Amino acid sequence: MTPQKINLSDKFARISQYWHPGVIGELNGQQVKLAKFKGRFDWHQHEEEDEMFLVIDGKIRIGLSDRTIELEAGEMLIVPRGILHQPEAEEEAHVMLFEPASTLNTGNTKSGRTVKDPGFL
Amino acid sequence: MTPQKINLSDKFARISQYWHPGVIGELNGQQVKLAKFKGRFDWHQHEEEDEMFLVIDGKIRIGLSDRTIELEAGEMLIVPRGILHQPEAEEEAHVMLFEPASTLNTGNTKSGRTVKDPGFL
Repeated sequence: MTPQKINLSDKFARISQYWHPGVIGELNGQQVKLAKFKGRFDWHQHEEEDEMFLVIDGKIRIGLSDRTIELEAGEMLIVPRGILHQPEAEEEAHVMLFEPASTLNTGNTKSGRTVKDPGFL
Repeated sequence: MTPQKINLSDKFARISQYWHPGVIGELNGQQVKLAKFKGRFDWHQHEEEDEMFLVIDGKIRIGLSDRTIELEAGEMLIVPRGILHQPEAEEEAHVMLFEPASTLNTGNTKSGRTVKDPGFL
């Protein structure tokens, strides 16, 4: 396996659907995913997995049960397992996600936006 | 444990030493670290750990046994376990690392730059 450089802009350009993450890399049982956020996603939690959101471009909000956290490009948040959260973005935002390969985007909440196999970008 | 926003610029501002990574987050047994690169680091490999380099600011090079990969801001590389590599930067560069909590910065090569406990920023 030969290491290959990954350019985030090139990968984001391949994403045509909001809230539909694509995998760009795997390491140590974890996956690095990219997603475009726009609008309001489902409230959900991941029972066994911590999830990291790193904003690459734009602004997002992560709703928690007691408050909302705003994140701009260059800011990140780790949502520990078991914490209910709701990602949201007024305008299109580009986000990198780190999480176990097993993580489902909608966690415990199955919906029309659940992506069972995100696939590689 | 209440999730707190992490601003990368604020965290980088706390780093005063090149090649001395600091931890900014933990999830799923992995750590997210930040480091400032300048100059040439030791050739090393990690026997059991894959390592990810994401350039936040500046340019770096990762030397591999057969070639060198150049990375700019917004570009990343996953170096699989067992692959010899040498990070390098002509000018100061800001890099995010994603790797298991057990990963030693110099891998199998102990040197004066080995950081056994990087600590939290």
